[in-house]
Amino acid sequence: MITLSSDFGSPYPAAMKGVLLQHTAARLVDVSHEFPRQDVRTAAFWLREVLPYFPPAVHLAVVDPGVGTDRGALVVRAGEHALVAPDNGLVLPVARRLAAVSDAEDATVEVFEWAYDDPASHTFHGRDVFAPCAAAVHEVGIDRLETLDAATPADEYEDRTFPEPTLPTAEAEAPRGEVLVVDGFGNVVTNLPASVLEGHYGAHVTVHGTSGRVARAYDEVDPGTRVVTVGSHGNVELAVNRGRGDSSFGLEPGDEVRLSF
Amino acid sequence: MITLSSDFGSPYPAAMKGVLLQHTAARLVDVSHEFPRQDVRTAAFWLREVLPYFPPAVHLAVVDPGVGTDRGALVVRAGEHALVAPDNGLVLPVARRLAAVSDAEDATVEVFEWAYDDPASHTFHGRDVFAPCAAAVHEVGIDRLETLDAATPADEYEDRTFPEPTLPTAEAEAPRGEVLVVDGFGNVVTNLPASVLEGHYGAHVTVHGTSGRVARAYDEVDPGTRVVTVGSHGNVELAVNRGRGDSSFGLEPGDEVRLSF
Amino acid sequence: MITLSSDFGSPYPAAMKGVLLQHTAARLVDVSHEFPRQDVRTAAFWLREVLPYFPPAVHLAVVDPGVGTDRGALVVRAGEHALVAPDNGLVLPVARRLAAVSDAEDATVEVFEWAYDDPASHTFHGRDVFAPCAAAVHEVGIDRLETLDAATPADEYEDRTFPEPTLPTAEAEAPRGEVLVVDGFGNVVTNLPASVLEGHYGAHVTVHGTSGRVARAYDEVDPGTRVVTVGSHGNVELAVNRGRGDSSFGLEPGDEVRLSF
Repeated sequence: MITLSSDFGSPYPAAMKGVLLQHTAARLVDVSHEFPRQDVRTAAFWLREVLPYFPPAVHLAVVDPGVGTDRGALVVRAGEHALVAPDNGLVLPVARRLAAVSDAEDATVEVFEWAYDDPASHTFHGRDVFAPCAAAVHEVGIDRLETLDAATPADEYEDRTFPEPTLPTAEAEAPRGEVLVVDGFGNVVTNLPASVLEGHYGAHVTVHGTSGRVARAYDEVDPGTRVVTVGSHGNVELAVNRGRGDSSFGLEPGDEVRLSF
Repeated sequence: MITLSSDFGSPYPAAMKGVLLQHTAARLVDVSHEFPRQDVRTAAFWLREVLPYFPPAVHLAVVDPGVGTDRGALVVRAGEHALVAPDNGLVLPVARRLAAVSDAEDATVEVFEWAYDDPASHTFHGRDVFAPCAAAVHEVGIDRLETLDAATPADEYEDRTFPEPTLPTAEAEAPRGEVLVVDGFGNVVTNLPASVLEGHYGAHVTVHGTSGRVARAYDEVDPGTRVVTVGSHGNVELAVNRGRGDSSFGLEPGDEVRLSF
Repeated sequence: MITLSSDFGSPYPAAMKGVLLQHTAARLVDVSHEFPRQDVRTAAFWLREVLPYFPPAVHLAVVDPGVGTDRGALVVRAGEHALVAPDNGLVLPVARRLAAVSDAEDATVEVFEWAYDDPASHTFHGRDVFAPCAAAVHEVGIDRLETLDAATPADEYEDRTFPEPTLPTAEAEAPRGEVLVVDGFGNVVTNLPASVLEGHYGAHVTVHGTSGRVARAYDEVDPGTRVVTVGSHGNVELAVNRGRGDSSFGLEPGDEVRLSF
C-alpha cells in the first residue's frame, strides 16, 4: 500500500499516481492533497495525526517549497512504515509517532538520503523524484530498502518539532499553549493536553477575554455557542457547535492560547 | 466494497480509511467528503440519489453534529446493501430507495442498533466508532450481520423524509414545491416531478416573477440564459446554461417554488 | 484500469463510479473532478499534461456543456490507451500526445463514434452514457473495441488545438505567447517553450511592464518575489515563490504574453 499526501490540489496528484502505477500494482490511498500550500508545519501536524491509523505502508508526502533547489530527498523508516518526502522536516514528527506506536519493541526512526539524477523538471519532484522513489521502496520492501543503491544513511537532515505548552505548576498559573492548526470545520487545535480541562467540565474557560463552556462533545452546548473540548488528536480544541471556532475565538495558527478558569 | 461519505473535507476521511484498512482488504470508494458541514438533510438527499447506482456494498456515511452525545449508531440493511451511520436519519431515505430498487422481491429495510464501547474520542466517531463498525459488517457479510453481538434490532430510531410537492388538481392551480438542494454547478434541485413540465417544453415558466424556458437540455438555451429542465435525479431543476441557477433565480434550499406557466 | 476526469465536483462522480463498478472490476483512478466548470479548453490542457504519465488505461473524461443535445459520444484509441468523452474536442489533444509518446512504432489516433440509446437523463451523460461506454470498452479490451456494435469509425468530430506561440526570428523580436491555464498555486502556464529562457537565467524578464527573475526553481528567488521559470509541462511559467503569479502578474487564461529581456 502507498498513501499520497500533498498540497497539490488538483490535477497534479494524478501525475504522481500515473507514475506510481507504471512501477507498481500497490493499492494507492489518498490522505490529502489539500494541505495549505507550501505550509510544511501544518502538513507535518496532520501527517502525524492521521498516518498512525494506517496499517504498514509506504507514505509518499510532498509539501515542497524548496523543489528544484539542492534540498535533498529522504526515505524514513519508522517501525513497519516508510515515508518518502523532501528533506524539510515534513515527516519527522510522524516518523517518531509511528515508531512510538509500533508493535515492534525495537522500532526506531532511520533516515536515508535518496540520491536522484537530474529529474525531468525543477518544479514537480512529486512526479519526477518522489513518486519513482516511493514505487521503488514499495517494490523492494520497507525492510530491504537499504539494498537500493540510491538509499544511503543520512548524515544530516532537517528536523521539525512542535512547540511544547507551558503547564501550570501552581494553581494560580494558567496553562499556556499555541494554536497548531485550524481544521476545515474551523475548530482551533491547540497543543494543550486534555489533562488541563480535568475538573473543569461544565464550567467556563476564558481564552483572551472570550469564554466558552468546557464539554466533552460539541453538541453539549447550544448550536452557535462556543465550546472548549478535547479533539480527536487528544489536544484541547476551541470550537463552536455547528459553527466555526476560529472566527468566534479570533485565533489562527501560531497564536498563543492562555486558558483562564 | 465499502463506500465512504461525510462532511469531513480533508484530511479526516483518511483516518477512517486507515482504520478500515487495518480490518479489511475491501475496495474503498469515496462518494463525497464535501457534503455541507453538519447538514444532515442535504447529505441524506445526495446519498439517496447516488448510492442506488452502486452494486451491493457497505456504505459508511457520517454527517454527525451529535457526535459524542448519547445519539446511537445504526446499521441499516436495505436489499443487498448495508448502511452504517449515526442515528440522525441520514441514511433512512436512501435505505428505502435501495430496498425499492433491489432485484430481490422481498427486499426490506431493517434497522439495527450498533452498541459501541466508550470510544477513543468524543469528537470523531467516524474514525473511532463507524469505521470499525463498517469493517466488521463487511467482514461478516451483510446477510449475516445479526451474528455480530454489537448489532441488535433497533426499537426506535430517527427517521427523515423530504417534503412532498403539491401538484395541481385543476388547471388553474400551480405546482408548488420546495428547493431540496443546490448542486455544485448552482443548479437548483426541487422536489417537483418531471411530469409537471409535460406539455410545456419550449414555453416559458415563471418562478416567483423570474422566468426561464422549459427545455430538455441545458444547452437548448443560449449560454447565460435561464432554463427549467429535469435533472438527473428526475426532478425539476432551475438552471442557467453555463451559469448558476441559484443566483439567477434567487433561490436556496428550503425555499418554496411555485411554477406559473 | 479506468481513470475518471470531469468538472463535476462532488458528489456526481460517485454515481459514475457506481455505474462503472456494476460492469467492471477495473481499478478506478481519479484524475480530477475539479476542472473549471464547462471549460473544455482548460480540461483538454490538463488531460494532455497528465494522462501520458499513466500506463495503458481507459480514460473516461466528461466536461460536457452540450449534454443532452445531439452532440455525439466518442471513443478514441491512441496508442495503448482509449479515451471516452463527449464530441467537443476534449480528448483530441491528449490523444495526439498519447500516440506520440507510445512505445508502439505505428501508434495512431483512431476516432470512433459511440451510438447510445435514449439515456435515463438529458443532464448527466457521465452517468448514463459515458460510464457504461467506458466499462464496455474496458471489458472488451482497447484493441478489440471495434467488435462492439456501438462503436463505428467517426466520419467527423470536433477537434481542438492550442494556440502556437510566435518565436523570435531576429534578436529584436520578443517571444509572444498566450496564457493557457492558471494552476491551483496561481502559477501562470503559458504556451512559450523553455527554449526562450535559455541564456537569460539569473537575469530579469519583463511581461507587460511587470518584471520577474528567470530561475530554474521557485525558491531561487526570495519568498513573495516574482519568478519566471519552466513548469513541469515544459512551458514558461510566471510565478511567485510561495505566492500567486496570476495576481502578481495580472494575467489570466487567454491573455497574451510578451516577454522582454
